[in-house]
Amino acid sequence: MARSVAREGLRSSDRAAIERIVRAVGIFREEEIAVALELVDVGLSGDDKGYRFLVADDGPLVLGYACFGRASMTDGTYDLYWIAVDPAAQHRGVGRGLLREVEEAIRREGGRLLLVETEDGPGYERTRRFYEAAGYPEVARVRDYYRVGRDKVVHARDLREGR
Amino acid sequence: MARSVAREGLRSSDRAAIERIVRAVGIFREEEIAVALELVDVGLSGDDKGYRFLVADDGPLVLGYACFGRASMTDGTYDLYWIAVDPAAQHRGVGRGLLREVEEAIRREGGRLLLVETEDGPGYERTRRFYEAAGYPEVARVRDYYRVGRDKVVHARDLREGR
Repeated sequence: MARSVAREGLRSSDRAAIERIVRAVGIFREEEIAVALELVDVGLSGDDKGYRFLVADDGPLVLGYACFGRASMTDGTYDLYWIAVDPAAQHRGVGRGLLREVEEAIRREGGRLLLVETEDGPGYERTRRFYEAAGYPEVARVRDYYRVGRDKVVHARDLREGR
Repeated sequence: MARSVAREGLRSSDRAAIERIVRAVGIFREEEIAVALELVDVGLSGDDKGYRFLVADDGPLVLGYACFGRASMTDGTYDLYWIAVDPAAQHRGVGRGLLREVEEAIRREGGRLLLVETEDGPGYERTRRFYEAAGYPEVARVRDYYRVGRDKVVHARDLREGR
């Protein structure tokens, strides 16, 4: 991603940038945007170490971000809650770069499994192709989870493998 | 369950009873007990409507409890986070009764799908048989989720069916 290494941790100015980005992406519903921003607020409050953030920026401009955390009650399993990249910065490898840095951060602390939940339905085809191309096959599916006809799909990567 | 109908909502005295019960059950690790009590504290604080409680009691004695909530970003899907019954009160249908009352509460507000996550491994055979006998087949599995060799299993019931 053009050598801009992501930083871990949020700045207060990131909130508006993240809201702009998740809206610009265009596939998230209002409730999803609210959940994304709620996690940002938790991250900014510093109260809960369960939600961690990597932010990719180019000078003052936020290009994208990732939110992840260790799954409670597990030994080395992590959830990737969100990756979003500004549509204006897409096709530059920002998303892939963020994902690789999340994996590195998890490996550094001994994590072994990273899960991503997505939706199977219109608007999510690119998201699912992104994860599959990045080494995250579908490992589980809950039918009709989001609503009737809209399954939850879990993609996962075993981080103990090579890259 | 001997006609003791569960009540919705926690009393402050329930916390110690619930701690006693989850410890007495004997299969939960310290981290799991901590998570259970954290949810009780959230429930008692009244801050987060995402965690709801049904408590089965017999006079002053708490026999068991269930914690459930609507899954965010879904249309009518709920998670059952915990059911625990005092071992001294088992084989009296308390768990099954709590589960049925959770289902009723969810149906009343238009919910349609109830999910329970369990672990596939020693100590969880009875738990999984309980859900299967209650109409919750396994619908998904994430290998090695809890730790290597310990899968997460998702059981689910479509609440739109008859009982």
